[in-house]
Amino acid sequence: MIDMPKTNADVTPTQCADAMLNQDACSKMMGMELVSTDRGRAVVKMQIRKDMVNGHNTTHGGMIFTLADTAFAVACNSYNLPNVAEFCTINFMNPAFLGDVLTASAKQIHQQGRNGLYDIALVNQDGLKIAEFRGKCRQIKGQHVPTLDQI
Amino acid sequence: MIDMPKTNADVTPTQCADAMLNQDACSKMMGMELVSTDRGRAVVKMQIRKDMVNGHNTTHGGMIFTLADTAFAVACNSYNLPNVAEFCTINFMNPAFLGDVLTASAKQIHQQGRNGLYDIALVNQDGLKIAEFRGKCRQIKGQHVPTLDQI
Amino acid sequence: MIDMPKTNADVTPTQCADAMLNQDACSKMMGMELVSTDRGRAVVKMQIRKDMVNGHNTTHGGMIFTLADTAFAVACNSYNLPNVAEFCTINFMNPAFLGDVLTASAKQIHQQGRNGLYDIALVNQDGLKIAEFRGKCRQIKGQHVPTLDQI
Amino acid sequence: MIDMPKTNADVTPTQCADAMLNQDACSKMMGMELVSTDRGRAVVKMQIRKDMVNGHNTTHGGMIFTLADTAFAVACNSYNLPNVAEFCTINFMNPAFLGDVLTASAKQIHQQGRNGLYDIALVNQDGLKIAEFRGKCRQIKGQHVPTLDQI
Repeated sequence: MIDMPKTNADVTPTQCADAMLNQDACSKMMGMELVSTDRGRAVVKMQIRKDMVNGHNTTHGGMIFTLADTAFAVACNSYNLPNVAEFCTINFMNPAFLGDVLTASAKQIHQQGRNGLYDIALVNQDGLKIAEFRGKCRQIKGQHVPTLDQI
Repeated sequence: MIDMPKTNADVTPTQCADAMLNQDACSKMMGMELVSTDRGRAVVKMQIRKDMVNGHNTTHGGMIFTLADTAFAVACNSYNLPNVAEFCTINFMNPAFLGDVLTASAKQIHQQGRNGLYDIALVNQDGLKIAEFRGKCRQIKGQHVPTLDQI
Repeated sequence: MIDMPKTNADVTPTQCADAMLNQDACSKMMGMELVSTDRGRAVVKMQIRKDMVNGHNTTHGGMIFTLADTAFAVACNSYNLPNVAEFCTINFMNPAFLGDVLTASAKQIHQQGRNGLYDIALVNQDGLKIAEFRGKCRQIKGQHVPTLDQI
Repeated sequence: MIDMPKTNADVTPTQCADAMLNQDACSKMMGMELVSTDRGRAVVKMQIRKDMVNGHNTTHGGMIFTLADTAFAVACNSYNLPNVAEFCTINFMNPAFLGDVLTASAKQIHQQGRNGLYDIALVNQDGLKIAEFRGKCRQIKGQHVPTLDQI
């Protein structure tokens, strides 16, 4: 096939993100939007809906984690090498409320062999820090976008 | 009011859980079911739906975290003293798939002053370990069910 | 050699611990004592000395971590398969003071393939909880005690 | 007293660090050296000695944690407001060996009310990443250097 990238380096971060997010029913259900991506980086945003809050219109911590985890996934899969989350931590700093627009910015802290470490900062529309997420990932076999060197 | 509990100790864990979960649109949206609760303990289960998976029908890590976080919340709020999550960690061990029924079992490891530590184990319908979650919470002011000693 | 164990299962947890701790100058320097060990388990204790405290005779958090990490290492290496710590968390609950005797009890939470998860509880001589440590390890190649099946 | 600073803001980060480290028998015993400090920041280095290694001359993870924890302590106490570590995580990336000189660089990620979050990166003399530490601290009462506004 003429258009097929020849190596992982030929596949752009945007192509990796598209290949992942097109299959991701969960991030679609939650209305997440990819703002940008680059090698080892991703920015994803999401508005807090009525079905994402618990008492007093505060956002369920799991919804905040899910947004961060999606930005983490896009960032750590941006080299066309599939990675899965192994161990994640999240520090909740301020509550998020119904209607807030949260932005999760993921960046690679370390990548060596099959192991990666990524930090994801989450802020609301006023720039207030909502949470800090740190995730360790591990590369598994395969590719997001097929290239000739795996055929 | 005749039926009002007089102290926090008069309010049962089930009453605390009901007060919380009745207001929790997020856990309702996700179809979570409270299996049981006691002081410092809670078991919550959930079936993985089509809108909870990403590529290859594997469950989004955020959905697994959200289930664990709900069991954590029920357990650490079972004394009628509101607690919020401060710092959580999750270790993903095996993937969960579309249709799986996950059970999250939360238990108190430590509670002292305003600080608590809880462990939440997640398994699928075959007893396979999916993840281990650990959460640190901190007590804030208020009550889930009003008692006379706050009036 | 007649006495050589034939398989990893023939090597006892105590033999694994001895092989590790005999080479461990750090745990010797700190005066750690192995109380007991079994498959996936270890108990190690240590008295807090003058060179382990910082201001106000409170123990440096690093000394508490080091004790926990040693118990973790003994427990996760008790199958004669070398494991290294990848990601550790520690929650500090109460200060430890000069002269206190701390006991770290490690137990395996999960072991699958090359990945393990261990919890280590630390208490002082009065049973007061000092810290809770959780560690993820990963198996590497080799053996602590040589067996015939590697020759 | 004429020389007494009038407010916490008058006390420099170096004065805070000196007040802490002068009392810290543990960091002295381990030969740690404060390279620099500023508000919310600290750099501390240490050479790996024979009594800090375990088998194969690799550094005990607890010694690496202790160095990071000291840099964390200096950074989070640089405002003359005492803070204690509550929850710490460490990701080990590469082994450190006998004779290596490790540098731990701590920086404040967030500080709000009584809660702080700090990241500490550890590298060896070649700039190779050894570990990444993240610590959550909580402010307690008191001051490192007395000021008039507490008298």
